[in-house]
Parts: sequence; C-alpha cells; structure tokens
Amino acid sequence: MPNRDVLNGDWLPNISVDCVIFGFQENHLKVLLLKFRNNEVWSLPGGFIGNEEDADDAAKRILWQRTGLENIYLQQFHTFGDLKRNIGAIEKHEEINLAMGRSLEDMKWLSHRYITIGYYALVEYSKVKVTLNDISDDSAWMDVSKIPALFLDHNAIVAKGLAHLRASIDTKLAAFNLLPETFTMSELQQVYETILGKELVRTNFQRKMLSLDILERIEKKYTGGAHKAPYLYRLDKKKAEAFMSSAS
Amino acid sequence: MPNRDVLNGDWLPNISVDCVIFGFQENHLKVLLLKFRNNEVWSLPGGFIGNEEDADDAAKRILWQRTGLENIYLQQFHTFGDLKRNIGAIEKHEEINLAMGRSLEDMKWLSHRYITIGYYALVEYSKVKVTLNDISDDSAWMDVSKIPALFLDHNAIVAKGLAHLRASIDTKLAAFNLLPETFTMSELQQVYETILGKELVRTNFQRKMLSLDILERIEKKYTGGAHKAPYLYRLDKKKAEAFMSSAS
Repeated sequence: MPNRDVLNGDWLPNISVDCVIFGFQENHLKVLLLKFRNNEVWSLPGGFIGNEEDADDAAKRILWQRTGLENIYLQQFHTFGDLKRNIGAIEKHEEINLAMGRSLEDMKWLSHRYITIGYYALVEYSKVKVTLNDISDDSAWMDVSKIPALFLDHNAIVAKGLAHLRASIDTKLAAFNLLPETFTMSELQQVYETILGKELVRTNFQRKMLSLDILERIEKKYTGGAHKAPYLYRLDKKKAEAFMSSAS
Repeated sequence: MPNRDVLNGDWLPNISVDCVIFGFQENHLKVLLLKFRNNEVWSLPGGFIGNEEDADDAAKRILWQRTGLENIYLQQFHTFGDLKRNIGAIEKHEEINLAMGRSLEDMKWLSHRYITIGYYALVEYSKVKVTLNDISDDSAWMDVSKIPALFLDHNAIVAKGLAHLRASIDTKLAAFNLLPETFTMSELQQVYETILGKELVRTNFQRKMLSLDILERIEKKYTGGAHKAPYLYRLDKKKAEAFMSSAS
C-alpha cells in the first residue's frame, strides 16, 4: 500500500477517518493511541480519504500504516458529524500544532470542519509493529478503563466503538479476533470479560461456548504438570461463518 | 425549521445524507420514495449538510421537509464511502438532470463525489404528509420486498438500513415506533413479522412480549361483538426505557 501521510491536497475535504484499534494484553482490553510530537496530547490514529480512494480502503490504509497489519477485522461503527466537534480546534490548539512542527499550509487544511467516520479494528496485540506518523513522537496501548482526556472528541469515539464491540460480541464472534490461533478456554473467557467489563461464571461460560459448536479442541497445552494442563482450542472457521450468518 | 432545499453553496462539499423512511401500511413494511421530475427514476429522500449544521440535524431537517414530522425515531446506521457509488453519475444521468430541470450550476455541484451518511426513520404512516422537493413530481410508499432499481446505490442503502432495523428490533424495541399509541397484540405481531420477513407463532410471540414487562393492557377494542374483542395495549415508556438500557 502507498504511504500517504503527507497532506498534499489529494484528499476529500471536510471528511476524516479515525480508528479505534483494540488489542488484548495481559488480561486487559487496550486501545492504541499516538502522542503528538512535543506535546502531552494523545489521539486516535486517523487520516483522510484520498480523492480516488474508497472510505473503507482509507481505514485499511491507516491501520496498515500504523500497525503493519493487513486483512484484519475492521468495522465501521459510526460517523461523527457534530459541528462543534472540531471547529476552531486548530486555533485553540495552535501552540500544539506549532510545537509538533505542522506547516502553515497543513494548518490551513486542518482548520476546516471535519466529519469523521469511526472504524474499530481488532488486532492480535503481539503482531502489531507500531509506526509513528510524522506528527507523533510516542505511542501506547492504553487500558480502555484508564484513557486520559484525548484530542477533540476522541474519548467519545472510543466509548462508542467499545459499545459497538460489546453489542457484536455474540453475533459476530468479534472476541476471537483478539486471540492467537490457539487458546485455552480460560484465555477466551478473559477476553470476553474484558470486553464486557464484568466477570462471568466459568462453568456457564464454558457450556455456552461449547454449545455454539464453533470450537475445535486440539491437544492439551504443555505446562509441565501434564495431568492438569488445560485443553487448547481453535476457532473452526467454517462453523463460525455458518453460526454468524444464522445469528445476524 | 428553515427550508434549505436550494443548492446555494452553504453546504459541506462531498458529503450527503440519505434517509430510509420506514412506515407500516396494510400489514406491509414500506419505504418512502421520491420520483425525479419528468423521469421514471426513484430515489431516497436526501440532501446535504449545512456548513454550520450538525449531521444529525441535517437528517432531522430532511425528514421534516419531506414528511412534516419532528421528534421521531431516527437512527444513523452506515456511511457509504465507495468511490464508485456516484462518481460520473451526473454525466451518466445528464438527460435525467436536464429533464428534471436542474440548473447547470446545480449539476456542477452534484458532479462531485459524495460520501453519504445513511439514516433510517420509523414513522407512523398515517401521520405523514409528503412534501415533494423541487426536483420531484411524485412520491410513493413502496413495499420493501418490491422496490424497483433506484438511483445510484439507493437499493443497497435500503437493504443495509433494513438489516440494521432487524438487528435492533429486540434491544431497541424499534417496531413500536411504527404503530399508533394503542394497538392489539395481533397488530404488534404483524409489525414484527413484516420487519423480520417471516411468520411467528402467535402464542410464543404473545408470551415473549408479555414477559418483557413493557406493555400496559388497556380496554378492549370496540368491534361490535364484545366477547371476542381483542385487548388494546400501550407501550409503558418508563418500563421500555428501563428494558432498553438493560438490553444494550
């Protein structure tokens, strides 16, 4: 994919894309955030839509530019079109923009009103190699329950993305996209608990998951003490697809 | 609300709004469509977003302009951003545009690429008074299962709106917005069946609806033969809100 970070005018005006990239690390649901250069202001990875680029392709490109990942779970969830969401933001944030090294030309482009299309992505945390853009000097995976005040309305975008993820956990089996190919029932339960933000009863969870008939049980996980080792599971993709088409 | 049908440049470029307005008439789920003046081409009611107008307010305004209704159920469901959805459409449809009386200035404005935000509305059919815009000469409520080939990608927009309506029927109690204030259980079941596109078992449906604890039973409907008259029900708005906040 082409790298199109530079604001050179080949973009649709007034429309942007913001990506809520969810990953699962150490039993916590986290979101990838970028820090503006020479500032303590954090924001979602985002960008613009090329004049000759599909909106969905713009989201895929931004995700690829920041994480190096392609062909991952990416879902448009809401378009944020309030007038007040960013009008006057550049003037208010002039110091930030100057500090991060924005050109006057870029600032003029950014001083317009933007309606932003929100996408959320579910990635396998360990596979992400973050590449900063030229206005960022740091990145972090932040726990969804501990996100600081972000740029513009990005907190609201994260909250709405999380609500959509929660709503699709049963019908779209979204949680599996956060796990490696094989996993234990306990790891699967932890992903569900962290997305839903509540504890689940182990026996009920296991019964429900097995009753969906979408899991393939493979060998036991090697832990040294063989007789207590938990089973490993893998999602049966054909059965999962059949389940999702019947559930939606 | 101001009438802003004229394309006078006070609009965001490259972004539009399209509304799928659902109504329930004679046991069928219908969509309000407009016919372009002096053409046989039908389209969804739509419009643009004022430079100083929230996207949601633009959708409310368009709905009000076409139906005369305010404060109704309106849900943003998807933004359609494919490059091919309308690029070149004006050139392709030059005859249509000339026939419907578009000015050259309007056609220049419309010849740009548009990303459109899709909203669906649920209205009480009998309350709608359709007002045509200046490029339309007819309107019709068309059965969702019998919609002809529409302008641009409007068939895909209707299909996606219907899928979202179906998905929200349980958690958002969407169907009740299509009914008058009081209704029989049979009428409620007909709305559910027409949205879901399948028949439901009467006893199961009634048991499920009553178990939600959201309905208030009022007097029997007057039909002449008193002992067989069905009960009328009304949605208990407080209980419905409590149900919806627990379901989402």
